[in-house]
Amino acid sequence: MEEEKGEKGVILLDFWTSPFSQRLKIAMDEKNVEFECIEEDIPNNKSQLLLKSNPVYKKIPVLIHDGKPICESMVILRYIDEVWPHQAPLLPADPYSRAIASFWADFIDKKVYDLGTKIWMRSGEVHETAKKELLEVMKTLEGELGEKEFFGGDVFGFVDIALVSFYGWFPAYEIFAKFSFEEECPKIMAWAKRCVQRESVCKALPEPKKLYEYLLDLKKTYNLY
Amino acid sequence: MEEEKGEKGVILLDFWTSPFSQRLKIAMDEKNVEFECIEEDIPNNKSQLLLKSNPVYKKIPVLIHDGKPICESMVILRYIDEVWPHQAPLLPADPYSRAIASFWADFIDKKVYDLGTKIWMRSGEVHETAKKELLEVMKTLEGELGEKEFFGGDVFGFVDIALVSFYGWFPAYEIFAKFSFEEECPKIMAWAKRCVQRESVCKALPEPKKLYEYLLDLKKTYNLY
Repeated sequence: MEEEKGEKGVILLDFWTSPFSQRLKIAMDEKNVEFECIEEDIPNNKSQLLLKSNPVYKKIPVLIHDGKPICESMVILRYIDEVWPHQAPLLPADPYSRAIASFWADFIDKKVYDLGTKIWMRSGEVHETAKKELLEVMKTLEGELGEKEFFGGDVFGFVDIALVSFYGWFPAYEIFAKFSFEEECPKIMAWAKRCVQRESVCKALPEPKKLYEYLLDLKKTYNLY
Repeated sequence: MEEEKGEKGVILLDFWTSPFSQRLKIAMDEKNVEFECIEEDIPNNKSQLLLKSNPVYKKIPVLIHDGKPICESMVILRYIDEVWPHQAPLLPADPYSRAIASFWADFIDKKVYDLGTKIWMRSGEVHETAKKELLEVMKTLEGELGEKEFFGGDVFGFVDIALVSFYGWFPAYEIFAKFSFEEECPKIMAWAKRCVQRESVCKALPEPKKLYEYLLDLKKTYNLY
């Protein structure tokens, strides 16, 4: 029986800069899930497939699995872990450890992207406050990491994926905000370097110089000075 | 062997107005979980137990289960469903339906409280925009509910709990924003009335007049006009 395109298999509606999308690539690579990436033309020429698949937010990433769309990266990440549970489980098995991992992934989601956006987009007091807060957030995460190899212990997992997807943006944050993550939170940097030794992570993250130049272009386009 | 207070059992650090706390009471009642409620003195006299249990946000609700704290209401709700799975399961069993329920619960969390707060706390353009957006959010939710009894179908579950916890606030939103939910989204109101027929929901929600007067007092205290 012939299938329409997209009716079977896994499709990721993607944009190369998106940490939220990179998370899903990392997770699916860890689990050896084959998927097709479709690069969207953001923000001005979104595909009909994206608009139809995510009518509420009209945003990437969207995962389309056997024709059924799932939206919001943390929802998708959990779905990936539930549908392909046997290789590289991302969440721990016991409910308390799962809750702790969910708490930290949610903390990262509530803080990092918004603060980072204020750092590269804004100036003056908003910029300065965001810089201070982002460093506090990173220090809080450093406290949670402690002396562990990964956030969950010895195994790369849910919280690692949630945070390392921002690592490609770190150099841009450093240039725009004039600080060094290495000086401010060396343990987080050591952890990040352990993470990027994994092929799944290394492959998924954008090239920092290309990302920085893309952000500079956006600032010019929208006259953000 | 004697146990220290709080070392065994379930404690909820609570505040009577909080929809986030009410969710957990509803869920535990549905599952016949016995718990002790400790009312916190918010915002000026938080207990040492709260500060120690939620050092990141210092906010209620916190669930302390056998001495171990869990924070953030949606994280806790999922934990409750995993630890006491046999009675009144809240999330559906299959991964796709779980993802859809998670998406809508997350949508509610991202929108309703913040918009509601702008409605009762703020005036002018911020107030007007929030009012318009809250009605759009409710209409989107009405679309998702459709002709179903509950968000998940025939059974009261995760999304119902996420949303119905705001029902106690609806009358206050209506008075502050001068609109009628009944006129704007009658299906949501019919759904809410089905929900409050459940003892778990009816018991958990605050008395609307008491809540409205509390918000009026807060507006006076902080001179929010």
